[in-house]
Amino acid sequence: MEKWTPQLQEVKPLSAEWRARAHGRLQAQIRPAGSLGRLEEILERLVAIQQSEKLHLDPSRILIFAADHGVAREGVSLYPSQVTWAMVNSFLNGKATINALARQLGSSVRVVDVGVAGDFADHPQLVAAKVRRGTRNFVLEPAMTAAELDRAMEVGWQQAEACFREGIRLIGLGEMGIGNTTSASAVIAALARFRPEQITGYGTGINEGQRRHKIAVIQRALALHESSLKDPWSVLQCVGGYEIVGVTGAILGAAAHSLPVVVDGWIVAASALAAIRIQPRVKDYLFFAHQSEEKGHRLLLEELDVHPLLNLGMRLGEASGAALAMSLLQAAARIYNEVATFAEAGVPGAST
Amino acid sequence: MEKWTPQLQEVKPLSAEWRARAHGRLQAQIRPAGSLGRLEEILERLVAIQQSEKLHLDPSRILIFAADHGVAREGVSLYPSQVTWAMVNSFLNGKATINALARQLGSSVRVVDVGVAGDFADHPQLVAAKVRRGTRNFVLEPAMTAAELDRAMEVGWQQAEACFREGIRLIGLGEMGIGNTTSASAVIAALARFRPEQITGYGTGINEGQRRHKIAVIQRALALHESSLKDPWSVLQCVGGYEIVGVTGAILGAAAHSLPVVVDGWIVAASALAAIRIQPRVKDYLFFAHQSEEKGHRLLLEELDVHPLLNLGMRLGEASGAALAMSLLQAAARIYNEVATFAEAGVPGAST
Repeated sequence: MEKWTPQLQEVKPLSAEWRARAHGRLQAQIRPAGSLGRLEEILERLVAIQQSEKLHLDPSRILIFAADHGVAREGVSLYPSQVTWAMVNSFLNGKATINALARQLGSSVRVVDVGVAGDFADHPQLVAAKVRRGTRNFVLEPAMTAAELDRAMEVGWQQAEACFREGIRLIGLGEMGIGNTTSASAVIAALARFRPEQITGYGTGINEGQRRHKIAVIQRALALHESSLKDPWSVLQCVGGYEIVGVTGAILGAAAHSLPVVVDGWIVAASALAAIRIQPRVKDYLFFAHQSEEKGHRLLLEELDVHPLLNLGMRLGEASGAALAMSLLQAAARIYNEVATFAEAGVPGAST
Repeated sequence: MEKWTPQLQEVKPLSAEWRARAHGRLQAQIRPAGSLGRLEEILERLVAIQQSEKLHLDPSRILIFAADHGVAREGVSLYPSQVTWAMVNSFLNGKATINALARQLGSSVRVVDVGVAGDFADHPQLVAAKVRRGTRNFVLEPAMTAAELDRAMEVGWQQAEACFREGIRLIGLGEMGIGNTTSASAVIAALARFRPEQITGYGTGINEGQRRHKIAVIQRALALHESSLKDPWSVLQCVGGYEIVGVTGAILGAAAHSLPVVVDGWIVAASALAAIRIQPRVKDYLFFAHQSEEKGHRLLLEELDVHPLLNLGMRLGEASGAALAMSLLQAAARIYNEVATFAEAGVPGAST
């Protein structure tokens, strides 16, 4: 996908100077040095991304990419594919978990239909950008064509661009798609060289027998496409999903526009891994929300050498973990912006 | 401390019926069963505490108990004792980390002077309840008298009662007191039978040599008081601090008034441990915010069989971890209150 090369160069390395300034300010605030723990590294990166004296993480946006999966016909999920369509409607009607969290956060929600099998009425929060009514079944053929891959990537990139134009300062990424833990596991297995059994979990709640079936499905798919899986693009094309590619495009586009991104759970982590393999500099723009219950999530986070903010055993998706983490980032930003220095407050410093 | 016995009986066991109702509602909401992970157990307990169809965690209050420690004269901290006084002033002036977090949360802050060595001007957010200008040096004599212990406990209980009267629905507890990680470690070692070296950490940032000195100080104190350390009350009296006792009283008082309490870090955990040993039923009212960097914190949380919400390597105190966790609880409550059921939303359920 050479056509993306110029755009990918727009992702800039983080400013070491701003990072150092942020470090200095955190050290000067009335707290023992380092006492905010991992929030300090996070704040330093946020400042280096925004390059300003004060952090601004409002307004924020939740982007949920939704699509269906041909591989769902292999019986890899407890839920029928129509649930993707029904949940998108629930997001649009404000009835789902992510809506409650977005209201708490004061965040706007956009649902991007990048490949749901059903039709939707127009809605101000719906982005109608269907590439196709679900991917092909990737145990039989590639999930998508190269043109579809490119189109789904573009949909994601454009959503990040729209956030930039609208003055959004923080993006939380999520997904909805029955069957997509199977696709995510296949993408991660192919990109990070894990064996499917190491990283295939219980999805929305399948049992051990169903999980063994899911592993076999992924093994068949990886065997079928083995000779084609030569780079992140071909992996996404062969075993990805439209929403997984859309999220990948949104991550790359957000980083290109210097927007920090909060990564939700297992499926968004697959997109993040693909985005990092496409352009390693995006990693500095990513804030991993949580370690989910998906079996391979810890392995993947270790492979990426990233430390999520939360570990609550969640396994929901739909950006729910991202939304919880976004509230932590906004609270941390408030600390950065508002706490006085030892000098300003007249507090004695450490004796060493 | 038999005089407390009637009050301690006011702590009621959680309602199994309300807990089951909460479980049923969470199962019916449009999510895979159990997909909120540990938030579900937390929501069930909150509903069982509040016994109402909707959860209300607003308005919330941050209570910071502050006091000085005679043992600080042993050189166990990097900071001089005057920092306690200076930080209390910073809390009152809204300049500290907890103030930024409380503003983000929309939470009121009260600073309870239960034993700071310096004097304060009147302030609407200051509760002037000084028991004494710092504890006695517990390597030489008991930290406080029985009457002082009782008084500090009462100050804490009264603050919880005041929250109840004012309609507060969630309390976050924190502390400030130079030297108090030493006191907390001594309390925890005595109550949970850990060796001081297992659970003595680096406090605000001492080095390994200073830590060894701190361990030796705790060992001397525990040896001196050995024959007196026969129950939670005597442990608090011999090696506690006024703020540690105040927080213990606040925990017991909050539970007696069916108010959920968010426990901050290492020092508040010492108070929580003492409160649980005094009245085991309080445990169900406690929500542990985070696992701090203090060396023994993980061991203590395991001993109590509790799972904190956050693990960010923080080690600040002043209720900062509690405030971050409170925002998660409020977001979770919003989920409980607002998400539709499968039936209401017309979403198909799982196929098994």
